[in-house]
Amino acid sequence: MARELTPRKENYSQWYQDLVIKADLAENSAVRGCMVIKPYGYAIWEKMQAELDRMFKETGHVNAYFPLFIPKSFFSKEADHVEGFAKECAVVTHYRLKNDEENGGVVVDPEAKLEEELIVRPTSETIIWNTYKNWIQSYRDLPILVNQWANVVRWEMRTRLFLRTAEFLWQEGHTAHATKQEAIEETEKIINVYANFAENYMAVPVIKGLKSENERFAGAIETYSIEALMQDGKALQSGTSHFLGQNFAKAFDVKFASKEGKEEYVWATSWGVSTRLMGALIMAHSDDNGLVLPPKLAPYQVVIVPIYKKAEQLAIISEKVDEIVKKLRAKGISVKFDDNDNKKPGWKFAEYELKGVPVRLAMGPRDLENGTVEVARRDTLEKSVVEIDGIENVVENLLEEIQKGIFKKAFDFRAASTTSVDTWDDFKEVLKNKGGFILAHWDGTSETEDAIKAETKATIRCLPLEFEEEEGVCVYSGKPSKRRVLFALAY
Amino acid sequence: MARELTPRKENYSQWYQDLVIKADLAENSAVRGCMVIKPYGYAIWEKMQAELDRMFKETGHVNAYFPLFIPKSFFSKEADHVEGFAKECAVVTHYRLKNDEENGGVVVDPEAKLEEELIVRPTSETIIWNTYKNWIQSYRDLPILVNQWANVVRWEMRTRLFLRTAEFLWQEGHTAHATKQEAIEETEKIINVYANFAENYMAVPVIKGLKSENERFAGAIETYSIEALMQDGKALQSGTSHFLGQNFAKAFDVKFASKEGKEEYVWATSWGVSTRLMGALIMAHSDDNGLVLPPKLAPYQVVIVPIYKKAEQLAIISEKVDEIVKKLRAKGISVKFDDNDNKKPGWKFAEYELKGVPVRLAMGPRDLENGTVEVARRDTLEKSVVEIDGIENVVENLLEEIQKGIFKKAFDFRAASTTSVDTWDDFKEVLKNKGGFILAHWDGTSETEDAIKAETKATIRCLPLEFEEEEGVCVYSGKPSKRRVLFALAY
Repeated sequence: MARELTPRKENYSQWYQDLVIKADLAENSAVRGCMVIKPYGYAIWEKMQAELDRMFKETGHVNAYFPLFIPKSFFSKEADHVEGFAKECAVVTHYRLKNDEENGGVVVDPEAKLEEELIVRPTSETIIWNTYKNWIQSYRDLPILVNQWANVVRWEMRTRLFLRTAEFLWQEGHTAHATKQEAIEETEKIINVYANFAENYMAVPVIKGLKSENERFAGAIETYSIEALMQDGKALQSGTSHFLGQNFAKAFDVKFASKEGKEEYVWATSWGVSTRLMGALIMAHSDDNGLVLPPKLAPYQVVIVPIYKKAEQLAIISEKVDEIVKKLRAKGISVKFDDNDNKKPGWKFAEYELKGVPVRLAMGPRDLENGTVEVARRDTLEKSVVEIDGIENVVENLLEEIQKGIFKKAFDFRAASTTSVDTWDDFKEVLKNKGGFILAHWDGTSETEDAIKAETKATIRCLPLEFEEEEGVCVYSGKPSKRRVLFALAY
Repeated sequence: MARELTPRKENYSQWYQDLVIKADLAENSAVRGCMVIKPYGYAIWEKMQAELDRMFKETGHVNAYFPLFIPKSFFSKEADHVEGFAKECAVVTHYRLKNDEENGGVVVDPEAKLEEELIVRPTSETIIWNTYKNWIQSYRDLPILVNQWANVVRWEMRTRLFLRTAEFLWQEGHTAHATKQEAIEETEKIINVYANFAENYMAVPVIKGLKSENERFAGAIETYSIEALMQDGKALQSGTSHFLGQNFAKAFDVKFASKEGKEEYVWATSWGVSTRLMGALIMAHSDDNGLVLPPKLAPYQVVIVPIYKKAEQLAIISEKVDEIVKKLRAKGISVKFDDNDNKKPGWKFAEYELKGVPVRLAMGPRDLENGTVEVARRDTLEKSVVEIDGIENVVENLLEEIQKGIFKKAFDFRAASTTSVDTWDDFKEVLKNKGGFILAHWDGTSETEDAIKAETKATIRCLPLEFEEEEGVCVYSGKPSKRRVLFALAY
């Protein structure tokens, strides 16, 4: 398979598709809209999971597991929720196949029809709150701070690897609290965890904010999100945290006896990030040569390629490399030594560039003589020759530099791609010719938001949490407004 | 909720059910046959996953993820496979709900019928081998050593928490090889990994063996299993590793060009362990007071309970406990200090016995005076008073002793519960009055196996890999036999 990618400028969407396939991250499966996550892609996801899981546990959460299936009747109990998800549900109606030669072999057994259809979970609020009803009697049973790692299914009609797939992997936190204040604090705590993860691990700068009513989660009172900007100037919602109020407690009749002995409905939050983060990670940093991975999430941080003509040379190089590998591993750095004899160094260089390995070391006979090694960093493609003695410190510093460097690059790109506009003409012109984030005044109504979307496809990504009050007028309606909100075209 | 368990002697099955519920491991959900794994139970499963995952990676495997759904036509491609799983499949037939007030609210939208039904995976050989077809062209693409952690669904009619549930969590390895020999070696390597995990982490002794034809996985040439013995004398199959020959390669037309340039079908294995292991873990060691957990898999290995009357005393005890906690954690020992003021020490003692925490430390005012702490081990319920100075070493040794001790106890129980029998009368008598493993000669035919099962419900658990050839006659048919096989009643 050719490893060249379609250049971003030529066709950004094709570049992304090429990259996901050619870097062995994922591929489309035979099942419409469902992907296969390949080992290299899954290794990145595992790194993400490990860090997020640690963060959740450090903030007091525990993991559990709830059923894949949700009875249809549960689904219907929260009106907004069913409205939001009913149109894209995989529905299980039967529980057996049978052999029927006359009708072409194996068929669904009509006698094995379920009394009540089961929905493959698109999200688990309903089955979980039905369970919490039995777990919660008193304020002493609260808070419940539970997360689950799971697969979910939303029958999307237009899918793209990682960004929008019928089945995806995610974590979903579902917490229960005695007070509104505590639930809101939890919602905010989690959006901060997500932002911290995005910025300090994925090296993707994000804007934290509140969703407008139109864009809220089905069943939420408030939805917080983190919004990242991709290289094509489109926004990607990368994580959401919902304050659900008492909606699900009321739908499932979950009450508790308060300290004062009163019966009250429980307050809820839910929050999630998914394999969509893989899409954000890929699109935020990569280039026309392939992936660029932040060292903190790379399956291996360093690859070492030997350069030699004769087998004897490889043996001598390998000995030296083993020393380097040991020193790097002692620092907690993950290393792959690629001594595969079937591939040439040039092939390997291109391969690891495509795969986004942050640092490549190459060692040839001349390096052996001089006690040096060639160091190449993936993000800038810069190369230098350094002494083997102390190489572990050089690499350690370089990995930190790359982690910071790609964050800064993305941060600077976002700064340059964020425009404040004050008129409708400017809004349309910036959106068309520059893209990116647009900060503009909005009158706060769904009607205006809908009209802007209908005319330009731009949506309100969020009402940023960090903002300064400012008198102004809505770019579209001209009505008064006290703050700018964040608009963009979005994935 | 009362914490007393039904005693094992009174009703073993009820004891198990009580224990799973009361120790907060799992519960039945509102969805028939599907369980909720509660945080304490899930924490044990996470520990199991972490160790197994490490073992798989150390033996060269990588993780990936394949779709939840399998098109019905794929399912039918391997004849034995579909025969084995068709009777217990959850089938997705529609992809949308709609609001229909006249017909009682939310209903399945008849217009959203899938062209081809999708099966919720009961196991993933078919979807994976359909994928491997595109991954494998040449011997250079082999071996493929992939594992996935996933949920699967088998529509069982009679379910029991962890032991048999409609949905369960598991890992399934799917490997592809250039030669028969290599595939068989992989199958055997994995059954050894499973046995190692069962014995050295779960502290459950197992017998490795081959399944008889009747008990083989649907689509396998050979199935290896590990078989454990529970306290009620019934066997529990705890893990299986299948040599699939070229069955799935042929069904999905997966060929490769060999080193010699010939086109050949690929050789396959698959292997899995599931949340069923939780059932084995619980039943192998626990007693009428609750869980007994091996230290290597306990969510926390040590709990510390303060004993005091006044708040000032708690403050002084807490200070001393903090020192102990630090010393234990420095040794890599996980500790919980339960200073909850709402519960009495006696309540806590019973609680942590129920939860199977391997070591309990208790510290009261007299201990403070004497510089001592009370140490209680869960497995034997023995208590002693030891000096705080050096407590970390005492606890470390004790955890090792408990890990070995519960294995030995289970091993001795199995030895005492294994009987060699030579006549059909003895077979029936031992099975009825003693239970356990029965080693008996068998003529090697399915007919005899079926007849024995029909008459006694006992099945051949396996043909043990470690055995001595021995001339004999089948206990049932009287026909000649060269080895004893392992019979038991089984879960």
